[in-house]
Amino acid sequence: MNQTAFEILSIVVSVVAFLFAAWLLKWVNQQPSSNKKVAEVGKLIRDGAATFLKKEYTVLARFTAIVSLIILVLLPSPIWQGNILPNITMTISYIAGTVFSAIAGVIGIRVATVANVKSAEAAQKGIKPSFMTGFRGGAVMGMAVVGGSLLGVVLVLLITNNTTALLGFSFGASSLALFAKAGGGIFTKTADISADLVGKVELGIPEDDPRNPAVIADNVGDNVGDVAGMGADLFDSNVASMAAALVMAVALDKTTNSTINASMVFCYAALGLLASIIGVATAKIGKNGNPTKALNNSTYVTTAVYIVLTALSTLAFNFEWRVWGACIVGLLVGVIIGLATDYFTNDEKSPVRYVAKASNSGPAFTILSGMSYAMLSVFPALVGIAVAALAAFMLCAPLGDGYALFGISMSAVGMLSIVGMIISNDAYGPIVDNARGLVEMGDLGDEALRITDELDSAGNTVKAITKGFSIAAAGLTVIALLGAFISEVNTSALALGIPGLQGFDIMDPLVFFGLIVGSAVPVIFSAMLMLGVDRNAQRMVSEIHRQFKEIVGLKEGKPEARPEYEKCIEIATDGALKELIPAGLMAIITTVVVGLIGGVRAIGGFLTGNIVAGLVFALFMSNAGGLWDNAKKYVEAGNEGGKGSEAHKSAVVGDTVGDPFKDTAGPSINTQITVVSLVASLCSTLFLTCSLF
Amino acid sequence: MNQTAFEILSIVVSVVAFLFAAWLLKWVNQQPSSNKKVAEVGKLIRDGAATFLKKEYTVLARFTAIVSLIILVLLPSPIWQGNILPNITMTISYIAGTVFSAIAGVIGIRVATVANVKSAEAAQKGIKPSFMTGFRGGAVMGMAVVGGSLLGVVLVLLITNNTTALLGFSFGASSLALFAKAGGGIFTKTADISADLVGKVELGIPEDDPRNPAVIADNVGDNVGDVAGMGADLFDSNVASMAAALVMAVALDKTTNSTINASMVFCYAALGLLASIIGVATAKIGKNGNPTKALNNSTYVTTAVYIVLTALSTLAFNFEWRVWGACIVGLLVGVIIGLATDYFTNDEKSPVRYVAKASNSGPAFTILSGMSYAMLSVFPALVGIAVAALAAFMLCAPLGDGYALFGISMSAVGMLSIVGMIISNDAYGPIVDNARGLVEMGDLGDEALRITDELDSAGNTVKAITKGFSIAAAGLTVIALLGAFISEVNTSALALGIPGLQGFDIMDPLVFFGLIVGSAVPVIFSAMLMLGVDRNAQRMVSEIHRQFKEIVGLKEGKPEARPEYEKCIEIATDGALKELIPAGLMAIITTVVVGLIGGVRAIGGFLTGNIVAGLVFALFMSNAGGLWDNAKKYVEAGNEGGKGSEAHKSAVVGDTVGDPFKDTAGPSINTQITVVSLVASLCSTLFLTCSLF
Repeated sequence: MNQTAFEILSIVVSVVAFLFAAWLLKWVNQQPSSNKKVAEVGKLIRDGAATFLKKEYTVLARFTAIVSLIILVLLPSPIWQGNILPNITMTISYIAGTVFSAIAGVIGIRVATVANVKSAEAAQKGIKPSFMTGFRGGAVMGMAVVGGSLLGVVLVLLITNNTTALLGFSFGASSLALFAKAGGGIFTKTADISADLVGKVELGIPEDDPRNPAVIADNVGDNVGDVAGMGADLFDSNVASMAAALVMAVALDKTTNSTINASMVFCYAALGLLASIIGVATAKIGKNGNPTKALNNSTYVTTAVYIVLTALSTLAFNFEWRVWGACIVGLLVGVIIGLATDYFTNDEKSPVRYVAKASNSGPAFTILSGMSYAMLSVFPALVGIAVAALAAFMLCAPLGDGYALFGISMSAVGMLSIVGMIISNDAYGPIVDNARGLVEMGDLGDEALRITDELDSAGNTVKAITKGFSIAAAGLTVIALLGAFISEVNTSALALGIPGLQGFDIMDPLVFFGLIVGSAVPVIFSAMLMLGVDRNAQRMVSEIHRQFKEIVGLKEGKPEARPEYEKCIEIATDGALKELIPAGLMAIITTVVVGLIGGVRAIGGFLTGNIVAGLVFALFMSNAGGLWDNAKKYVEAGNEGGKGSEAHKSAVVGDTVGDPFKDTAGPSINTQITVVSLVASLCSTLFLTCSLF
Repeated sequence: MNQTAFEILSIVVSVVAFLFAAWLLKWVNQQPSSNKKVAEVGKLIRDGAATFLKKEYTVLARFTAIVSLIILVLLPSPIWQGNILPNITMTISYIAGTVFSAIAGVIGIRVATVANVKSAEAAQKGIKPSFMTGFRGGAVMGMAVVGGSLLGVVLVLLITNNTTALLGFSFGASSLALFAKAGGGIFTKTADISADLVGKVELGIPEDDPRNPAVIADNVGDNVGDVAGMGADLFDSNVASMAAALVMAVALDKTTNSTINASMVFCYAALGLLASIIGVATAKIGKNGNPTKALNNSTYVTTAVYIVLTALSTLAFNFEWRVWGACIVGLLVGVIIGLATDYFTNDEKSPVRYVAKASNSGPAFTILSGMSYAMLSVFPALVGIAVAALAAFMLCAPLGDGYALFGISMSAVGMLSIVGMIISNDAYGPIVDNARGLVEMGDLGDEALRITDELDSAGNTVKAITKGFSIAAAGLTVIALLGAFISEVNTSALALGIPGLQGFDIMDPLVFFGLIVGSAVPVIFSAMLMLGVDRNAQRMVSEIHRQFKEIVGLKEGKPEARPEYEKCIEIATDGALKELIPAGLMAIITTVVVGLIGGVRAIGGFLTGNIVAGLVFALFMSNAGGLWDNAKKYVEAGNEGGKGSEAHKSAVVGDTVGDPFKDTAGPSINTQITVVSLVASLCSTLFLTCSLF
């Protein structure tokens, strides 16, 4: 079989994934819903999410238009140098990247804001129907994201036959992810913090109380941050890993005049999607089953199916076993990193319990001990990434020049192979979280509340694991992108008749300069997002105060007094986009400035510094947030004095600090790194020809 | 003039510095002291510090004995390979490094624990005598540290005529710094946090209340952490920067058969010390003068004198102007970084005010906004370091092979040239901080309290600046050490007849592996130290509780009820050393493991990752701590509701979190990086011959 055959196979599997998603969607839609109050609140959430998406996509469309124009004029090389055709191809690929990712996001949000209502009502009948509704709702997103990313990559390569265009497609997906993940992250934490600050702290009304004007924004936030944002983030990582692998595979294939490496990339990617479909289809839970176990089991099924399928295909099509090994090493290291993350954030393990205990001495000790453990938690993940990269390299280096880096990119593909399953599990979280809120607002009874609490808690546990997993995957992907960058530079250099790059010597002052500056970027980026949340929350708090003051009877909960939920959604939306743009521009402009000062060598250092500091901070912040969240829940479950105790007050402070860590800054760093890596690759010709040094 | 002449010049200047220190010490001793109560408490502090030093040096002596044995057997090459002489030289140099630094520490602590009493009493007469006592007390330490480090380096090189022995001396200084800085850091924050937690929070008694059993330990902590620890840290950086520069200078001189580069290193270092002497000697304050201005003015005088003197010497001795330029760039960038640090930690600037304002919404917002600004604060410092390194490199590269890295090492020497002045300013801080406590405990009146408050506040402002400065200097120094590492590897490789290193390619999987693992080390190191403080504070809190329970009349303040201060000092001391050792061993063992797995290339990446992540975390943690400290003081000065307000409670939480950040973990990272760099250099032969890959 040749490359085209595997491309067609990928298209077929993508279409199967879409058909499966349609069936899941239909199944979710067929679940009963009758409660009027739940339906009403559900509609408010749905409309709020639609408002955010509409506004976000409007801003994004403008942004895309400007970037498209820049690409059209400048990339891959300025049009005044003669050839406009590659620029048109690149522009269209870029736009396609944003559109494909946006469509997946819309599908995910649509189904999540239906599934939440259905899952809430199903909770009256037991854990099984409620779980299945949440899980299958999440799986629609999983299938749409992975099907869409695979289909997009195949189509771009089939139509353009140009791997640089693939990077353009990937850059489109990244720009969207930047808006969806970082923008959504600011949105969700603005709403969450403001709702808690006025509702719980000032007025003492319960969480999810419908009197609180920010309560709908808070529920919308779960969807835009955790469903649309996370989906766009993993869409982006998945596309980037495939793009990086394909750039190198095609370059390798050219030298041997074959198509075997590119075929292997498509084959493995398609099998990953197939394995996820099987994992989702076979997921089940007993009548009184354990939802965490059910979620984890389907992940293990997917992993096992993937290993078997890829081994069989390697045997059948004579792929290199060494590359297969690299791919499987990536997958296994991903699972191990997930488990290590679990250790640091699970309330049955000692770190969470230590932090809960330390909370007795006051909030400063919650923060100090939580930060310390989160700092320790970066070690297993970083060592795992380092070992995976080293193992992949060592396995594949004997295959010849260029195979070592290709091996690393394949270990990223391997780690991301089960991403369809990961997204399904991840999107399950906000759906059941919403369902819990709806059960409370719709008064569906204590038993339903208990069930949705259990489902929600499983969602949180699994989320911590998948978060560690996706950061690690992004880490390997960007290492692969570094390889793609060199490949791009050398292609441009060859065309320009100037010397290319073999690597980046740390002792080269330009590389070192880039390295130091690059390491500052993710730190600044995170800080800007967190300050954005802070400022935006202040705006929303003022609005909530205004409503409680001006709307007669609201505080007392009179039925005719309806809070203006839309106002809060509007503030969260506008603020999120306003606060996001400077941070995104800072990252992109710094990249361009460093490239124009120090050329491609400085950029090599810059990307490396960015990856290193980015991974450290992403892991640190995500795990700190997860740890504090679970320490609070552990105390609320009645430990260390339970609710209302000194330890509880401290734990709440930890959780509030952790919120923007884990849902805004931490996971957005991935996207920032990918965006910067792709900007660097796309501008490689510019940096080669126009740098100061 | 040849190298020996400049070595003699350096010895002369060092001796002048010691004589000047002796004169300053005599002056301080001659200041009047009559108050019995102050003298009594002063003695308790002095004895407590002596207890700590004695115990620390006992443990250190054992540690040194073990390390000496390892060096004797293994370094620079195993004795079974034939030649024992270099190993003996190395061992003696190592021991000399610890001894020289220890002596400087003892001198510093001795004078600081006299000057605090004298400065307290002088405060009754006005700001001028009180300031001068504090400043001149601090200057004794400054002179002893810089005189001792310069003298040590000259003597080792004169006697052994071997630059590798210089690295052994530097490693000795680093081991001591690890104990003094990290151990002292754990000590001081254990005492500080425990004293506050039981005293201020539980019992509501004021700071520095003599009933509190931890109060003396707290005051001792200022001395062991900020005087002895900081002195050892800068002794270490200063020696390391000179050693790195000399390793390269001597290697360069060998190729041209001259001594000009080594002469220049000695000349510039000696002139730096001379400039500091002039700066200290001319420091003065008006009768109602501003102490911050006085401290800053003497820094500016030193800087200006240094620039003029080095320019004249360059003219007179025909040194390279380009190298002079690199040196001055380093110095100026150091000053700029200091000013940038000031912006983020000064209570007249917007970051501190923003954090103070955010504190109204609760402690979570103090933490979030403070962390965000601290994360932003790494940018100017990192860009400054990157620009200094790039500029030094570019300036010196045209001079020929090897000059570029030598230029970077000279910019580190330049940045550290005024270190005598920096230490004087830095040691001034804890002296006047102690004086403030003594004024309170000795009831010396409100006017004296106001004066010592003002002096203390100046100490805090200047401390933030000097901290940024010393982290930046350490950053440049370790870059230079990376150059020294290559130089060492190539010398060993030449002797072994195997190929050496030109640099470290990031795309080399071993380098990359080292890079990722190396970046985790400072993060883990910091976390271990912070958890150490946490655990140690718990022990001390139990002890304080026990004393209040068992000692009759203590809580009520009856005169016959005397707390057992020594018990608290003992706990702080034992705990500090116990908690420090695993962290130090982790860093050293990881280095050796990475070297044995991946060889010298992995170590190159490892050191780079260590530097990058280390600089980011050191800057972030130090600045966060400084910012929170000053935000609390700003609120206590009556802003945002003043003492007792909601904002104040939040600001106290921020300050407590910031304490181990800025006084334990943050500044210890410098030392960790230096230790690891030197271990790597010393083990270069081992890694060249015995690695797995």
